[in-house]
Amino acid sequence: MIRIALDAMGGDHAPHEVVKGAVAALREQQVELVLVGQGDIMRRELEKHGRDSKISLVEASEVVTMGENPVSAISQKGGSSIVVGMNLLKSEQVSAFVSAGNTGAIMTAALLTLGTQEGVARPALSIALPTPSGPVLFLDVGANADCRATHLLCFAQMGSDYMNRVFGIQTPRVGLLSIGEEESKGNKLVREAHQLLKESELNFIGNVESKDIHKGIADVVVTDGFTGNVVVKLTEGLGALFLDLARRRLNSSLRHRLISPLLKPALRAVERQLMDYSGSGVALLLGVRGNVIKAHGRSKAEGIKRAIAVAKKVAEQGTLEVFGGT
Amino acid sequence: MIRIALDAMGGDHAPHEVVKGAVAALREQQVELVLVGQGDIMRRELEKHGRDSKISLVEASEVVTMGENPVSAISQKGGSSIVVGMNLLKSEQVSAFVSAGNTGAIMTAALLTLGTQEGVARPALSIALPTPSGPVLFLDVGANADCRATHLLCFAQMGSDYMNRVFGIQTPRVGLLSIGEEESKGNKLVREAHQLLKESELNFIGNVESKDIHKGIADVVVTDGFTGNVVVKLTEGLGALFLDLARRRLNSSLRHRLISPLLKPALRAVERQLMDYSGSGVALLLGVRGNVIKAHGRSKAEGIKRAIAVAKKVAEQGTLEVFGGT
Repeated sequence: MIRIALDAMGGDHAPHEVVKGAVAALREQQVELVLVGQGDIMRRELEKHGRDSKISLVEASEVVTMGENPVSAISQKGGSSIVVGMNLLKSEQVSAFVSAGNTGAIMTAALLTLGTQEGVARPALSIALPTPSGPVLFLDVGANADCRATHLLCFAQMGSDYMNRVFGIQTPRVGLLSIGEEESKGNKLVREAHQLLKESELNFIGNVESKDIHKGIADVVVTDGFTGNVVVKLTEGLGALFLDLARRRLNSSLRHRLISPLLKPALRAVERQLMDYSGSGVALLLGVRGNVIKAHGRSKAEGIKRAIAVAKKVAEQGTLEVFGGT
Repeated sequence: MIRIALDAMGGDHAPHEVVKGAVAALREQQVELVLVGQGDIMRRELEKHGRDSKISLVEASEVVTMGENPVSAISQKGGSSIVVGMNLLKSEQVSAFVSAGNTGAIMTAALLTLGTQEGVARPALSIALPTPSGPVLFLDVGANADCRATHLLCFAQMGSDYMNRVFGIQTPRVGLLSIGEEESKGNKLVREAHQLLKESELNFIGNVESKDIHKGIADVVVTDGFTGNVVVKLTEGLGALFLDLARRRLNSSLRHRLISPLLKPALRAVERQLMDYSGSGVALLLGVRGNVIKAHGRSKAEGIKRAIAVAKKVAEQGTLEVFGGT
C-alpha cells in the first residue's frame, strides 16, 4: 500500500483541519498516512476522531510558519515538519509528501533534501485544471518568477511526461500561454520559447490564450511562474467574486423566499466547480527527486483529502523522472 | 457639444452593429458623432435607423482588417478609416476617436499620427474595472508586451493623472500587480518597479495580487502589457465559463420548470456585471496626443455605446497630458 507523509503543522488551519482531512482520506482511499509534527498536538487532534491503524506519527519538534523567510527557515529549522517530511521521502520510507505549509520553504527543502532530477534546470509547481475533455496541466504557477525560454521548454517536457505517465496520454498536446495565437504574439520570453518548443520533440500546438486554458485544446500549458501565479490567484479571486455576485442577485430578484432554498444546492455545486477551475488548491512540484504535493495554504479537511488523492495517484507511478525513467 | 469620431468599419460586427451603437448612443448621450468609413455602406446602414442630424459622415475608402499586420496596414492604407479618424483627431475636428478595429493598427496609427505626449516613453492601454469603492484603472493591458521598470512607473503616472482628472480622486492610490504583497515578491521587473514607485511622488500603496484587483484597495494598478492582457482575457474567459456553469447547474437542479424563467433576469444581470469585470471591452490609450478609445473587437451596439460614453467623459476633460497639462 502507498505510504504518504503529511505535514500536520503546515497551513492556515493546521493541525486541526489537516488531521481531520487525513482521517477523512483514510475512510475513502487505500493509503497509509504518516503524520509529521509535534507528537502531543497530533495525538490530541487524533483523539477527536478515534485512532486509525493506518495513521502513524513521526515527531518533528519545530514548525515553519507561513510568513517566514523560506531559506532561513529551512536552514535554521532542521527539525521542522517540512524537513523531516522531506527526509522520510528521500529515505523512501514514504512515496509522497503532502504539505499545506509555506510554499517557499517546501520548495527550498525539496531542492536541498531531494535535489533536482537529472537535466532539470528548474523544478516547477504545476496544477491540473478541469476542461471538458479532461485535465490540463498548467505550470509554472509560482516556483520561478523569472524564467528563460529554456526553462519553459523544460516545464513543457516535465508536464508532457507527467500527462503521459499519470494520465496515460500518448503524445500530450503542449500549449504556450501567450496574448495571441500567432507565433509573433507575446513578449520576448514567449517568442523565444515558441521557437524552442517548435523545434522540440514535443507535440507543440502553439500559443494558447488565457481565455482558452479551460477549453481543453491542450493537455499541458506552460508559462513563467509570475504569469502562472497571477492566473491561478485571479481564477481564485474571480470565482469568489462571481459566486458572491450570483448569490446576491439571485436572492434579491427572487421575491419568493420559498425558492431560495432550492437554489442553495445548485450554488454549492457551482462553488465546488469554481474551486476546481483554480486547481482545487493542489499543486505538484515537478522536477525534484520525489513526489512533493503542495496543498493550498488555506486548505481545510476537504482540501487535504484532495491533496492526498493526488499524492496517491502520482505515487502509484513511482517517482516521475522526466529525463531518464524511474 | 463634444464631437466624437467613430470608426464605422472596425470590429467583428462592423459596420452593422457599430452604426446601430452610434444611433443608440445619440438617443441617450449629448454628443455629436462623425462616422468614418465607406460612404455607401455607412448610408445604407443609417437608412435602417432613420437619419439623425447629430451624425455626420467622413469618407474613408480603405479598411484595415482585424488580422492584418498593423505596421504594414497603416503605412499602406493611408485612406483607411483608422488613419482618417486619427487625422480628424489631430486636426481637432473631433475631441475623441473610437474604434473597435485592429488594436495594433490603432496603436500604430495613434503613434504615427498623434505622437506621444512629452515625457511618455510608452503609451499604454488602460481599462477601468469595477470595485465596491469605484473604478480601478488597470494598465497596460496589451500595448507593450515587454516592459522596463521605468515604463511601469510611467504607466503609474499616466494612470494616476487620469484618475485624478477624470474621476476627481485627489491622490489616487497606485498598486503594482505582483504575486505577493511583500516588496521582495515578484519577478525582476516588478521588484525594480517597486523601488521606482516607492521613490516616486505617487501615492504608492505597494504590491497588489491578482485576486485583489477587483476589491477596491487601489485606484490604479499597473503591470506589463503581457501580464495585463493575460489578466483581461482570463477574466473574460472565466466570466463566460462561470455563467455557462451557473446556467446549467441551476436549470438542471431546478426541477420545477416554472422557476426557471424567474432566474433569467437575475442571470442576465450577473452576465452584465461579469462583462464589467473585464472592463466592459472599452480600453483607453493613455500617453498619446489625443483621446483614443479602443472598443472590444467583438463589440456589438451596446459595447459601441459604452465606448462612446467613455470617450465623452474623457473628452470633457480635454486631452489628458500627464507631464504638462492641456
